Amino acid sequence: MSWLETSIMATKGVAGGKAGTHHQLTEEVQGKYHYVYGAYAKPVLTIEPGDVVSAETRDAFEGALKTEQDKPSEKLNMPYLNPQNGPIYVNGAEKGDTLAVYIKSVLPRGPQPVGTIALIEEFGGLVGTNNTAVLNKPLPEKVRKVEVDAEKGVKWNDKLTLPYEPFIGTIGVAPEIEAISSLVPDYYGGNMDLPDVAPGAIIYLPVNKTGAYLHLGDCHALQGDGELCGVAIEQPTTATIQVDLIKGMKIAWPRLETEDMYMTIGSARPMEDAARIAYRELVRWFMAETGYEELEAYMLVTQIGKVRLGNMVDPKYTLGASVLKKYLK
Amino acid sequence: MSWLETSIMATKGVAGGKAGTHHQLTEEVQGKYHYVYGAYAKPVLTIEPGDVVSAETRDAFEGALKTEQDKPSEKLNMPYLNPQNGPIYVNGAEKGDTLAVYIKSVLPRGPQPVGTIALIEEFGGLVGTNNTAVLNKPLPEKVRKVEVDAEKGVKWNDKLTLPYEPFIGTIGVAPEIEAISSLVPDYYGGNMDLPDVAPGAIIYLPVNKTGAYLHLGDCHALQGDGELCGVAIEQPTTATIQVDLIKGMKIAWPRLETEDMYMTIGSARPMEDAARIAYRELVRWFMAETGYEELEAYMLVTQIGKVRLGNMVDPKYTLGASVLKKYLK
Amino acid sequence: MSWLETSIMATKGVAGGKAGTHHQLTEEVQGKYHYVYGAYAKPVLTIEPGDVVSAETRDAFEGALKTEQDKPSEKLNMPYLNPQNGPIYVNGAEKGDTLAVYIKSVLPRGPQPVGTIALIEEFGGLVGTNNTAVLNKPLPEKVRKVEVDAEKGVKWNDKLTLPYEPFIGTIGVAPEIEAISSLVPDYYGGNMDLPDVAPGAIIYLPVNKTGAYLHLGDCHALQGDGELCGVAIEQPTTATIQVDLIKGMKIAWPRLETEDMYMTIGSARPMEDAARIAYRELVRWFMAETGYEELEAYMLVTQIGKVRLGNMVDPKYTLGASVLKKYLK
Amino acid sequence: MSWLETSIMATKGVAGGKAGTHHQLTEEVQGKYHYVYGAYAKPVLTIEPGDVVSAETRDAFEGALKTEQDKPSEKLNMPYLNPQNGPIYVNGAEKGDTLAVYIKSVLPRGPQPVGTIALIEEFGGLVGTNNTAVLNKPLPEKVRKVEVDAEKGVKWNDKLTLPYEPFIGTIGVAPEIEAISSLVPDYYGGNMDLPDVAPGAIIYLPVNKTGAYLHLGDCHALQGDGELCGVAIEQPTTATIQVDLIKGMKIAWPRLETEDMYMTIGSARPMEDAARIAYRELVRWFMAETGYEELEAYMLVTQIGKVRLGNMVDPKYTLGASVLKKYLK
Repeated sequence: MSWLETSIMATKGVAGGKAGTHHQLTEEVQGKYHYVYGAYAKPVLTIEPGDVVSAETRDAFEGALKTEQDKPSEKLNMPYLNPQNGPIYVNGAEKGDTLAVYIKSVLPRGPQPVGTIALIEEFGGLVGTNNTAVLNKPLPEKVRKVEVDAEKGVKWNDKLTLPYEPFIGTIGVAPEIEAISSLVPDYYGGNMDLPDVAPGAIIYLPVNKTGAYLHLGDCHALQGDGELCGVAIEQPTTATIQVDLIKGMKIAWPRLETEDMYMTIGSARPMEDAARIAYRELVRWFMAETGYEELEAYMLVTQIGKVRLGNMVDPKYTLGASVLKKYLK
Repeated sequence: MSWLETSIMATKGVAGGKAGTHHQLTEEVQGKYHYVYGAYAKPVLTIEPGDVVSAETRDAFEGALKTEQDKPSEKLNMPYLNPQNGPIYVNGAEKGDTLAVYIKSVLPRGPQPVGTIALIEEFGGLVGTNNTAVLNKPLPEKVRKVEVDAEKGVKWNDKLTLPYEPFIGTIGVAPEIEAISSLVPDYYGGNMDLPDVAPGAIIYLPVNKTGAYLHLGDCHALQGDGELCGVAIEQPTTATIQVDLIKGMKIAWPRLETEDMYMTIGSARPMEDAARIAYRELVRWFMAETGYEELEAYMLVTQIGKVRLGNMVDPKYTLGASVLKKYLK
Repeated sequence: MSWLETSIMATKGVAGGKAGTHHQLTEEVQGKYHYVYGAYAKPVLTIEPGDVVSAETRDAFEGALKTEQDKPSEKLNMPYLNPQNGPIYVNGAEKGDTLAVYIKSVLPRGPQPVGTIALIEEFGGLVGTNNTAVLNKPLPEKVRKVEVDAEKGVKWNDKLTLPYEPFIGTIGVAPEIEAISSLVPDYYGGNMDLPDVAPGAIIYLPVNKTGAYLHLGDCHALQGDGELCGVAIEQPTTATIQVDLIKGMKIAWPRLETEDMYMTIGSARPMEDAARIAYRELVRWFMAETGYEELEAYMLVTQIGKVRLGNMVDPKYTLGASVLKKYLK
Repeated sequence: MSWLETSIMATKGVAGGKAGTHHQLTEEVQGKYHYVYGAYAKPVLTIEPGDVVSAETRDAFEGALKTEQDKPSEKLNMPYLNPQNGPIYVNGAEKGDTLAVYIKSVLPRGPQPVGTIALIEEFGGLVGTNNTAVLNKPLPEKVRKVEVDAEKGVKWNDKLTLPYEPFIGTIGVAPEIEAISSLVPDYYGGNMDLPDVAPGAIIYLPVNKTGAYLHLGDCHALQGDGELCGVAIEQPTTATIQVDLIKGMKIAWPRLETEDMYMTIGSARPMEDAARIAYRELVRWFMAETGYEELEAYMLVTQIGKVRLGNMVDPKYTLGASVLKKYLK
């Protein structure tokens, strides 16, 4: 028996965690990609709980950085960055429900070199930015192209090959009335850049709007904690997800489940607020699962909680807090 | 001669700072108020540069807090807060231009008590919030109603009357592709809650979208620096503004001009980033006006810059940095 | 009658606000200057409550930057910066008391050019620093020397003369067991760089150690809010203060009183924490002075509080929150 | 061959990583414990590079919380918290050198229940604090006592036993002229509360003062990332370390080495500054070890860096950034 059968998705979902129709959200079906998370665009696909979607995602630069000679400042056109597939309309989803998205696979797509890394002016974790405004001269721009193979890994250079550890950098649902840049992470998901949102995991998202309006994109072949320079190994992919719906379960922020652990996800600035959000959600989840009262849960989670830094570069920083399932007793 | 004739608005504006047609944006003309800054809603008014608009603004609670017995948690319905007049379409405004809005008057409107103050759970500068997430129990909710008179002031209680020092709490233009909650301040203006945006001042806003899509609302009878508890003396008003357009002048963040000073405005978290944004913009403005080179301007602004804290409670904090015009030589 | 006679210092102080013996803390009496706030060094002076001290302060660079050709990186020797006069032992001061320091005058001292401004690598509000660590190349170093005259002002250049608005940049008492760099501001005072600590004001400091161990130094001829580039118009001075002692009045953070207002001072990072500290102290002070209960005081201070940004460059940022005395009813 | 023989300590240390004399720093030898990191106290022990020290550490409350009925507010006496063993004078250590401390073992000491956890008013990651000052009422105080056994683990309750994963919460050397509370972490080490500072690891510390003045204490039986409630499973221990000295190697912040990885450690507020410090140090270390130029190292570390959150509760937050040694090619 797979652990999935005991997951929250399987035990509470409308489809009971069972896979339904498999939809192909190809580039042709998608047509125009989107740059905001909102419910103003027309859905490209309508699905039932349980349905599987294979989406052809574009890389965060929408393929504009083709060679190592390209200059991001010339090729990129703010705010038309981080193109998203979707919106996907989920039948039956209403405000106050939770969407469960099980990530089945994320595979590189297109001709080599598939992977792109770039240094972009005034963007990144170790430079002055539009927010952390400084008078220092920006770092030089730079583009790196690398071959990515799901089996062989990421060829950094002749000496060094890095593992292929793919995940979905940006995934989420629409806010109720807003349409927010796909560069931003927040309570509805979005550009979290959290490596745990990987094949084998289920991410739970709070539905704010009838139909949920699921979007996804920005898949990475590999990324370290914090996405330090602002750019992971960006790649176009075929990302396959199974979407379920949990009626009447209301969550405030995204959550994540794997075979071994439960995670809560917060996005905010300064970074300690992302940590506070994630950990408060975790304490509350832990209380609900175990029955411990609040102070006891607070003291116990203090001893066993783990933290994953998603990004330290986006408009809000993202951080996941988790506990192993084995401690839930 | 009024100082206005030497203002940036008058010297660079399409209308030369001269008043045109006076439009009445009454509650009836407005119809439905809006809760996002964006270009997805249909304009309620189309104006020419120079035109004057008198807008009937609602208070930030849209009148839902009628008595001191009302509970905000029962009467307020997130995210339908901070109702805005607009969008106002400005003919000729295009991305890369700057809108100049001269604030002529902000007058209380409607039956007494006109003013409302409230404590809202998990909102404010001295409490845990949704971002600064804590386990402490929230403060009690509370509503205060006060009489507001433009001449006599704000009657806090029998012993204490406060001055009437009104301003526009929320004003701005649409982002290019986003629609962002009117609770948020950012580069396009929005919920800055900066007391300098007051009658007699001109605020300059960066146009991101053809037509500019100007919104305003959330007028305050009085507010201290930082809007500490999250709620000023909120009031419905008739706010009268004169709108001009500066073609080809591109600014990154809002700016403000009065008879005596120039101010730049930044909004971000943590608060030091708001300060960095505002001051970097100020140094650049100062350089452009005086011809000092960057390091000299940086050292000089250090000695003469003043800071006004707008809010320390909204999704981004807002802070203005200013220099007196007399130092521009 | 001077307002001083109604000050907290005069009404609660051991000396009743009356001036006692006048001590000269010359360079010779001082001998070695100090670079930490602590009680490990031997007092250079022992005084009674009410005594007046005229201290010959050195500038923050201890005179090491003599010409505009000097390079800070060659002339300055961390951590031997920001030299302080003191410690001054105050007879009768014990942990839990409050020291009141009335600032009588701050006058420039020594040959012209008296004033020094500098850009120091990786230090300042608009550059990457040791804390806000970036990979960007530092700004160039730079030194400016200016003539300072208490009557005529600060001669920035031939076109521009700035006002002489002096204050004490660094003043405080010893922590109980620590010895902390004089570059740091905190609950005991220290390097607050707050322009309100000026002639005519009384600053109140929490005594942590028998004798208080008062230090002062780092006087400025002028400084804008935030001390943007990290360096005000630094000058050696003769600073004259009158020291009183309030027995049994315990404060958590520095406070300040002028003829018109009460201010509380917080120092922390991020900047919003400095604001939270200052405003919580202000709400509590306001409650104690007026008898309003907490929520009412919180809502009222929201409408009338003013904020002064001291520094946005030191190891902790400093911010003062104030209310006018006229509202205390 | 042990990996230790290839460690930086072994290859660059004065003692070549070889163990020398074994000193017993018992409670009796220690006498008075210390509450600051500084060089004002007389060393309790003088050692040679290579020497081994077994220190009897006290728990962070110095044993004052004896039962679950004790109230921290009554039993704890600020600032006399977090008692430290030391100072240990290391012969030959001078400013500009690096101390290497190999952690051999950390074993619980004394009668059961050895472990203490506590909730302290206005302290912790999910409550308002002295810095993040709020008006909300504090959480209740609480003390938990638990049995700790190095073999069997930490008995949380009858259902749940947690692993024994000990580490040294506070370790460091003296600043050059300061004496800073042992509650603070900074460039010299101190109260980092980073679980990687565990048996099997080598921590490198920058010497600021002749003799180094090494201190340690605050050992934990177990702690999650961030030390959420502010208190790990605190325990008195016998901690055994081997101290070596690397002449002429100057580091700006603590570093750590294990068999598999290199880590750099930053401490600051807000948390993103701790991340920036740690990652800038890591990029620089990585460049030095591999010969990659800066931008290439920045982009590569982005893909492979890992982050460990030490604490989100101390006066500065601590965070480690690391890369696996296998990528150093």
